[in-house]
Amino acid sequence: MRMVDIIIKKRDGHILSKEEIHFFIKGYVDGAIPDYQVSALLMAILDHGMNMEETVTLTDEMLHSGDVMDLSAIAGHKVDKHSTGGVGDKTSLVLGPLVASRGAKLAKMSGRGLGHTGGTLDKMESIPGMRISVSNEHFIRQVNQIGIAIVGQTGLLVPADKKLYALRDVTGTVESLPLIASSIMSKKLASGSDSILLDVKFGQGAFMKTLDDARELAKTMVAIGHNLGRDTRAILTDMDQPLGYAVGNALEVKEAIDTLKGHGPKDLVELCLEAGAIMLMQAGVYKDHDSAIKALQESLDNGDAFNKLKEMVDWQGGDVSYIENPNKFPLAKHIVEVKSDVAGHIARIDALMIGESAMRLGAGREKLEDKIDMSAGIVLNKKIGDTIEVGETLCTIHTNIENYDSIIEDVKKAFIIKKEVVKVPPIIHEYIAK
Amino acid sequence: MRMVDIIIKKRDGHILSKEEIHFFIKGYVDGAIPDYQVSALLMAILDHGMNMEETVTLTDEMLHSGDVMDLSAIAGHKVDKHSTGGVGDKTSLVLGPLVASRGAKLAKMSGRGLGHTGGTLDKMESIPGMRISVSNEHFIRQVNQIGIAIVGQTGLLVPADKKLYALRDVTGTVESLPLIASSIMSKKLASGSDSILLDVKFGQGAFMKTLDDARELAKTMVAIGHNLGRDTRAILTDMDQPLGYAVGNALEVKEAIDTLKGHGPKDLVELCLEAGAIMLMQAGVYKDHDSAIKALQESLDNGDAFNKLKEMVDWQGGDVSYIENPNKFPLAKHIVEVKSDVAGHIARIDALMIGESAMRLGAGREKLEDKIDMSAGIVLNKKIGDTIEVGETLCTIHTNIENYDSIIEDVKKAFIIKKEVVKVPPIIHEYIAK
Repeated sequence: MRMVDIIIKKRDGHILSKEEIHFFIKGYVDGAIPDYQVSALLMAILDHGMNMEETVTLTDEMLHSGDVMDLSAIAGHKVDKHSTGGVGDKTSLVLGPLVASRGAKLAKMSGRGLGHTGGTLDKMESIPGMRISVSNEHFIRQVNQIGIAIVGQTGLLVPADKKLYALRDVTGTVESLPLIASSIMSKKLASGSDSILLDVKFGQGAFMKTLDDARELAKTMVAIGHNLGRDTRAILTDMDQPLGYAVGNALEVKEAIDTLKGHGPKDLVELCLEAGAIMLMQAGVYKDHDSAIKALQESLDNGDAFNKLKEMVDWQGGDVSYIENPNKFPLAKHIVEVKSDVAGHIARIDALMIGESAMRLGAGREKLEDKIDMSAGIVLNKKIGDTIEVGETLCTIHTNIENYDSIIEDVKKAFIIKKEVVKVPPIIHEYIAK
Repeated sequence: MRMVDIIIKKRDGHILSKEEIHFFIKGYVDGAIPDYQVSALLMAILDHGMNMEETVTLTDEMLHSGDVMDLSAIAGHKVDKHSTGGVGDKTSLVLGPLVASRGAKLAKMSGRGLGHTGGTLDKMESIPGMRISVSNEHFIRQVNQIGIAIVGQTGLLVPADKKLYALRDVTGTVESLPLIASSIMSKKLASGSDSILLDVKFGQGAFMKTLDDARELAKTMVAIGHNLGRDTRAILTDMDQPLGYAVGNALEVKEAIDTLKGHGPKDLVELCLEAGAIMLMQAGVYKDHDSAIKALQESLDNGDAFNKLKEMVDWQGGDVSYIENPNKFPLAKHIVEVKSDVAGHIARIDALMIGESAMRLGAGREKLEDKIDMSAGIVLNKKIGDTIEVGETLCTIHTNIENYDSIIEDVKKAFIIKKEVVKVPPIIHEYIAK
């Protein structure tokens, strides 16, 4: 078998066999197949697509290109969720404790932020002492004991994706449905949980710009999961504005704490309850949606979910006093209100622009080696549907940098204000169970 | 400017600007742009094509990526011809002396063979002493004195094509019209002649399989030439059988000598006269086709063309006694007649199979570093349209290898024999002057 023949086959619009996809992935990971052949194949895949069988095979081969987590030592049903990346997305920090408080097991490996999207690991590290790297034994014991752990990747999971993603990034081959779907799903499947809930975001601030694109990606990933024997479901959620009010690491942790105490922003609460209900049904803890929602609401009301977060922080070495008293989180040097020049109704809040502005304020990284300022970020005062007067505060920026004037201008532009009354959009647009 | 943005632009079906094509070619030759980005762009070009302006620009940028031959020290009009590669194609060895004997100047740089197609330089080297590498001064002086020189490439012509071709070969991106056209034309234009005649072959044994494909390639190359200020014309010629009877280096030189003495195979003679007439008109030596043909026929009849070959061999250090007495060329150890198992009429002779068989007999190279056996090859006894009886000879193989039984079987299969009478196809199908 020769790589050039595989490239030509896909270039001519034919379907690749299981053997050919295996040869390509194995050869690439081994170093036998050079980057320049792989990038040509990736471009051919981008142009000609892959059918479901090819996409499932590609995912399976990537999944088995490295270590696969064995979570069998954890008793009970292990749930996992994955978000395609949003702005202000602190869902894992709320949803994790919520479902764990109701008996589902969450043995989650999470990622860091890059560009305009934040990462759960970075947010967790704003809590002093919090360890995101623990031994495998500790990880298993923690989940068995308290039902939840969120850590960085352990082992060498899906090395094929690491190489492929780096190459796709510089060869214009990111935007391919089978490549995106197999990249996400191979990592999720390698993480070893029993079921997966995908939160596929769409809108200005998301990777998928339209509901149709998000639906297509979600359906592909759900099908991959089912084909590889894993209960996989998806929700399509709005990213036409940041999720909740807070964008930035410590700021988001504080909002997550508020939410677990029962005082969360409407959209975040709704998302966490609905997603949590699906996960509890996947885990078999509840049979129907309404009982699951009721139970989760109880966990918010009686403090069970909040206590679960404290337990997790404690097990992972974090200072629980910060969770009990969020005022301990250090504030940025400059906290500046951004005022509106016009009056009207908030029609949209460009999440991409807010995410990028937060990054420039210090909350994110442009390159993987950049350092993050945990206190930096943006807190919205208004959300879509709200009225705004001239001189009223749109949002507040938090930063330790000195030259933030141009950032304030950008943040202001992110708010699209209209004369007419604006309806508040739903957070979850669709649910794809199969 | 970033290479990834250029890739994405072409991937999305847009037209690349002059600056973008310049950036890509210069960066690739300089080593600033890596292979893996270039191969992704090549695949995007293969998929989305290039318009004429892009193709002309690409050719121009490749042409200026290295040295450009300056033939201004040669008096008179310099003609050049290029064949897209055939089996048994000894045209240059006949056509060159022919047009030079009538006053056109041929300062030609030729190539080596690879795979099933032979190269003029290899054929010339079957003449003892023949040098295909001469100094630039010698080259210029020779053409000024006798009107003809055929040598290997001097200087670093079109390094962009060298790198691109090697990459295309292993990334499934050979079969792209703008890439093929710009590759051929950049080299021809860099060779510095005043006019170019392209012999675009089509059929089983050619790179272009159909007349339509050949026409499209020819038209593109002619347009590139005209756009870059060079009189460029093309003929589309048949490769549904090898050209002439002989395939293999010394065997083809002997056939070229026969042809220059007036005893050539019909198809080869016709091709050389017609192509020669076009070249003489391009050079302005004759105004009309009929006078040119007449003059060329005279050169064959009176020995002028044959003497021109001798002069060239002499100037380039070759042993002229071999030209005068072709029996001096050493014969292969095994000369075996291949007999027909069936009777009928020859309908087609698979030139690809004949070319590959000749290569396996020792006449060609699979890899550039392989050594060639000058005496090896195949001499056809029959051509399309001929009748054949059972037991009659189809062709004769010449080889110094010992295990040629399977090759004889393949050679036999190359002859497609039908019951019905078969019409002899024309050698030149179309002439594209503009």
